[in-house]
Amino acid sequence: MLETPRKFTVVSGSAEGPSRLNAFDNALLAAGIGNLNLLKVSSILPPGAVEVPQLDIPPGALVPTAYGAIVSEVPNERIAAAVGVGIGADGDYGVIMEFSGRCSREEAEAEVRRMCAAAFEARGRALDRVIVAATEHRVREVGCAFAAVALWY
Amino acid sequence: MLETPRKFTVVSGSAEGPSRLNAFDNALLAAGIGNLNLLKVSSILPPGAVEVPQLDIPPGALVPTAYGAIVSEVPNERIAAAVGVGIGADGDYGVIMEFSGRCSREEAEAEVRRMCAAAFEARGRALDRVIVAATEHRVREVGCAFAAVALWY
Amino acid sequence: MLETPRKFTVVSGSAEGPSRLNAFDNALLAAGIGNLNLLKVSSILPPGAVEVPQLDIPPGALVPTAYGAIVSEVPNERIAAAVGVGIGADGDYGVIMEFSGRCSREEAEAEVRRMCAAAFEARGRALDRVIVAATEHRVREVGCAFAAVALWY
Repeated sequence: MLETPRKFTVVSGSAEGPSRLNAFDNALLAAGIGNLNLLKVSSILPPGAVEVPQLDIPPGALVPTAYGAIVSEVPNERIAAAVGVGIGADGDYGVIMEFSGRCSREEAEAEVRRMCAAAFEARGRALDRVIVAATEHRVREVGCAFAAVALWY
Repeated sequence: MLETPRKFTVVSGSAEGPSRLNAFDNALLAAGIGNLNLLKVSSILPPGAVEVPQLDIPPGALVPTAYGAIVSEVPNERIAAAVGVGIGADGDYGVIMEFSGRCSREEAEAEVRRMCAAAFEARGRALDRVIVAATEHRVREVGCAFAAVALWY
Repeated sequence: MLETPRKFTVVSGSAEGPSRLNAFDNALLAAGIGNLNLLKVSSILPPGAVEVPQLDIPPGALVPTAYGAIVSEVPNERIAAAVGVGIGADGDYGVIMEFSGRCSREEAEAEVRRMCAAAFEARGRALDRVIVAATEHRVREVGCAFAAVALWY
């Protein structure tokens, strides 16, 4: 099977760019995750995975990543993205939730906290805490807000 | 290279949730696939892969998965999702097709059957049978219908 | 960790199909990449990766792939997709950009060239050249234009 990740790092960043994809690319660079091959996952924290503050991964590596992103071309619009990692009281697997929208960073963060709480309730498990990363951005021309949980080894 | 999957399991499920992503998460739980890291693939059944009725995968594992999903926030709307695995008469690789829409389970199932037939015709191969999983859901507030083929080891 | 790809192949293709997903599937077949499990990546060329003109990968294999695709059901509409691989003067990692839209092949190609240039500028690196694949298609009923960089081993 594909090796299950053992580490995770929570990041966020916002940026402008000359195109939608460049804005996304620049937001990844701002988040410190721009030179990797992100594989989007849907999105469980493996049991025993350890949080590491900084990514230490060579460029071009394949990195399973749960993320939320929004790109806007509406000048002056406020956009935000957040991720939350719900950690259980029982030491079992965690649940990762992503959100992005036309709102503030605080609203995005509150939303992923609610989503993590609901995910634990749906599983009948006690939620201990939620690790959050969130960002907001005021669009100039083409802007992107991006938040992610990278799962690595 | 990344190891080619040798097993597959076909699942489906529908659910409500307090947000779009929670509805999706709950539909995955209803389908029995909620505690994994789904890697969305586009979507071929490896030659020789064996159907296994139940998933037996530890939480947080990376699982290549072909899936169709629809989320709706329109009360009383009927939504459906289906997957089909087209199996050839020749024992070679199969083709996986996904569909979701605002329709009945029967319509979604018929659609993936048609799509698998067309995929085999495009390859000039004889289709032996189609393995299908399908689900429909009547939305209350925020609902999701989800159908998937998990590829594992 | 997941093994980092060491080869890459740039492809493109367009096709019609009886459904949106069949059109996509047929465009993949036209591009010579139809019988693989594409894992969508976001999208860096690993340092030292070597371009190989033809894919040599068994069916059903998991293949990290950066791609742009557009499906249209508007008769007579022109659609296009392009990918660009920006290669640096320094031999370090490259940057892959994807684009698809309702435009000509030349416009799609020019767009990915601009995007690769911007991605190198954002990184403060000198761009040596851009390897491009692009395709355009005039829709009859349901058409798809697809361009990709497959990363393999």
